[in-house]
Amino acid sequence: MDAIEKHILEEVADLHAVPEGAYNIRYNGQSDGRKTTANIDIVTKTEEGKSGIDIIIKPGTKNESVHIPVVLSQSGLKETVYNDFYIGDDADVTIVAGCGIHNCGTDTSQHDGIHTFYVGKNARIKYVEKHYGEGDGSGERILNPVTVINIDEGGYMEMDTVQIKGVTSTKRVTTAVLKAGAALEISEKIMTHGNQYAETDFTVDMNGEDCSANVVSRSVAKGKSKQLFVSRINGNCKCAGHTECDAIIMDQACVTAEPQLTANDIDASLIHEAAIGKIAGEQLIKLMTLGLTEEEAEEQIVNGFLK
Amino acid sequence: MDAIEKHILEEVADLHAVPEGAYNIRYNGQSDGRKTTANIDIVTKTEEGKSGIDIIIKPGTKNESVHIPVVLSQSGLKETVYNDFYIGDDADVTIVAGCGIHNCGTDTSQHDGIHTFYVGKNARIKYVEKHYGEGDGSGERILNPVTVINIDEGGYMEMDTVQIKGVTSTKRVTTAVLKAGAALEISEKIMTHGNQYAETDFTVDMNGEDCSANVVSRSVAKGKSKQLFVSRINGNCKCAGHTECDAIIMDQACVTAEPQLTANDIDASLIHEAAIGKIAGEQLIKLMTLGLTEEEAEEQIVNGFLK
Repeated sequence: MDAIEKHILEEVADLHAVPEGAYNIRYNGQSDGRKTTANIDIVTKTEEGKSGIDIIIKPGTKNESVHIPVVLSQSGLKETVYNDFYIGDDADVTIVAGCGIHNCGTDTSQHDGIHTFYVGKNARIKYVEKHYGEGDGSGERILNPVTVINIDEGGYMEMDTVQIKGVTSTKRVTTAVLKAGAALEISEKIMTHGNQYAETDFTVDMNGEDCSANVVSRSVAKGKSKQLFVSRINGNCKCAGHTECDAIIMDQACVTAEPQLTANDIDASLIHEAAIGKIAGEQLIKLMTLGLTEEEAEEQIVNGFLK
Repeated sequence: MDAIEKHILEEVADLHAVPEGAYNIRYNGQSDGRKTTANIDIVTKTEEGKSGIDIIIKPGTKNESVHIPVVLSQSGLKETVYNDFYIGDDADVTIVAGCGIHNCGTDTSQHDGIHTFYVGKNARIKYVEKHYGEGDGSGERILNPVTVINIDEGGYMEMDTVQIKGVTSTKRVTTAVLKAGAALEISEKIMTHGNQYAETDFTVDMNGEDCSANVVSRSVAKGKSKQLFVSRINGNCKCAGHTECDAIIMDQACVTAEPQLTANDIDASLIHEAAIGKIAGEQLIKLMTLGLTEEEAEEQIVNGFLK
């Protein structure tokens, strides 16, 4: 690992060294290290034209983790990767994915990861995904993650997805289908600056009795960046759905929030909230009377909001 | 006026007799009475192929009202009517529109009213619109009101729109453009039953400093009826926008709420809330312990919700 790779691994996966547990590190389109455990297998896909891995977690696996970070430091590299996660019944695991692009060149670097989850009966999974870009080249850094979630009866998935910095353009599509008693918690944090564009699109189909979904997005748009947040929740049975989008706009940024709730069943209970606005003047003044400059005060408020 | 006309006038305009102030009654596609006042003129449109009236209210007119009810009792009558409202600067008036369809036949009766408002500087207007259908024929009762609102600087418009009963299908489109200091308050109440379909679509462009918009919809969907609520609020300047959609679903009804907030300016402050669900069990039980049947309890809750 060179210094850039190490730095990016730290940013996207909080990794300072080779991780504990199972892992697969992808570096400029190649596998750069893999470890499996007795309970977690990682298998390279063999279908032609389909790059990616299968992560197979045995039923009942508890307190194990999988790290699958991706690093792109070669300007101009574009790749689409398919990763499928099979989480066995009753397992309880943490999966950390993430992609960092370091682009010092002039060509566009792009990583599109299509992640499909099969969460088994009564399994619990925490999925953490971080996207990050850096590099002083003029080349664009594009990340289009697609996440497809299937949760079987009684399963639970928590998805924390963060894109804090340096991604020129992103379109993030997440779809989820929930069976009886399944629960999904999604927390998204996004910050855009400069001329960046970020679009997120969630669709949750609640198909099984007593399933629940909670999709919460917090975002900050700075500079001339633009963001679009779309969130569709379809209640097709007795279920509870909640979606929330709070956005802070700064400078000349622009944010659109477009949720859609559909109740197709009398026992579906659906709620949405959204608020878009700038940082409240009183909050700034309070911090400035404590000795912070306006910029420092703004930064502190933004950091608190995205924490 | 015959008994049917009288009854429908009562339903759509709370009129028991010929109204005070200015009025224009449209009955089966024909003018059936008109009164103007010193300050309010009503003029039949003369453009070819364009049926309708211009309502011209002099600047400074205070505490006057205009009633323009429409009654259709002839099965199979379909009409599109253009009514334009010119509300002079500093006026303060109430306008009551409404359409009732009594269809005892087998053909579709349809009234599509396109109402355009030019609200003058610092003028205030309360606009009440009621839609109602009845008749034991199998013919459909269709109402597609279009409302186009332009509010000049400092103007204020309150729009109360109600569709309680008997309308087979409706698509209600409202657009509004607000100048500096203008304020718009929209309250919509809708109830659908049987196989009815209701769609409402609001678009508000907030273009002038310190303008504000508040769009609140409450609806009840019974039987196998379907409703779609769309509300777009675009904050293009320093402004405050709020939109809210609360829906009660009953039986096998289906409701979709799809708001869209866009902040194109850092000083735009936008909020949305939506909730869809059935009547809470505890509420029903409380009323039933007071001696009401389940149906009576439901009816009481629905009436309170739509009041």
